[in-house]
Amino acid sequence: MSVCELCTTEGGVPVVRHAEFRVIRAPDVSFPAFYRVVWNAHVAEWTDLAPPQRSLCMQAVAKVETVLREALRPTKINLASLGNVVPHLHWHVIARFDWDSHFPQPVWGPAQRAVDPPAAQRLPITLEALDARVAMALAAPAGD
Amino acid sequence: MSVCELCTTEGGVPVVRHAEFRVIRAPDVSFPAFYRVVWNAHVAEWTDLAPPQRSLCMQAVAKVETVLREALRPTKINLASLGNVVPHLHWHVIARFDWDSHFPQPVWGPAQRAVDPPAAQRLPITLEALDARVAMALAAPAGD
Repeated sequence: MSVCELCTTEGGVPVVRHAEFRVIRAPDVSFPAFYRVVWNAHVAEWTDLAPPQRSLCMQAVAKVETVLREALRPTKINLASLGNVVPHLHWHVIARFDWDSHFPQPVWGPAQRAVDPPAAQRLPITLEALDARVAMALAAPAGD
Repeated sequence: MSVCELCTTEGGVPVVRHAEFRVIRAPDVSFPAFYRVVWNAHVAEWTDLAPPQRSLCMQAVAKVETVLREALRPTKINLASLGNVVPHLHWHVIARFDWDSHFPQPVWGPAQRAVDPPAAQRLPITLEALDARVAMALAAPAGD
């Protein structure tokens, strides 16, 4: 059995650290506003969590989604928990734009176009500022 | 502005009808155990719902996931709310198997292999029996 990469690495740029989960930003040139809520414990499925933990996890997903919507006004938010390759619970939260390389395809589908200048340069704020807004939103009390 | 197909059609085989959402089965030869929790009102994003509705929606997703896990013992569950093409809130709940046509790729990615006999014939129960189990699980009181 191979070592789980989400047990042994952060899995991306660390943005938020919580006792039960973390939020990282996936370094992806095509989809710069691509965050993941990673459950710290190694569980494969969302329903492996007890209902209160499921809710906590989804509250984090909702907070990241809300920041991306408010800061970037994306065409669409894409949410997914797949884990076919890395079966350690992680939720993708991705801001999608009608001009991005794959829209309206999922990020896992075929590319639709070349994007130049690169996607990160088209966002209204820097990724550092976006990370800071995500961190601030997640620092607010749960349930907000 | 075009007519929303999830406002005007069921969107698949009707399995559960609730005041605020419905569960349908997507007729997909490659992924027969493919359900969608469709919010009845036309909203684009999950966070367009108020927090209690978000929870209700995710409780339905969890119940479908639980039935698929118990009935089919899939390799992995895939959950997603994308809506790039049809921006009307719907959650995909898909049982994935290591032998399916796309595994470990997402269902939206490139096919990995041909599958014969067809996927539905490899499931331990019929789709009609699976639909019935989903319907029964969703009929239980919220929060179960």
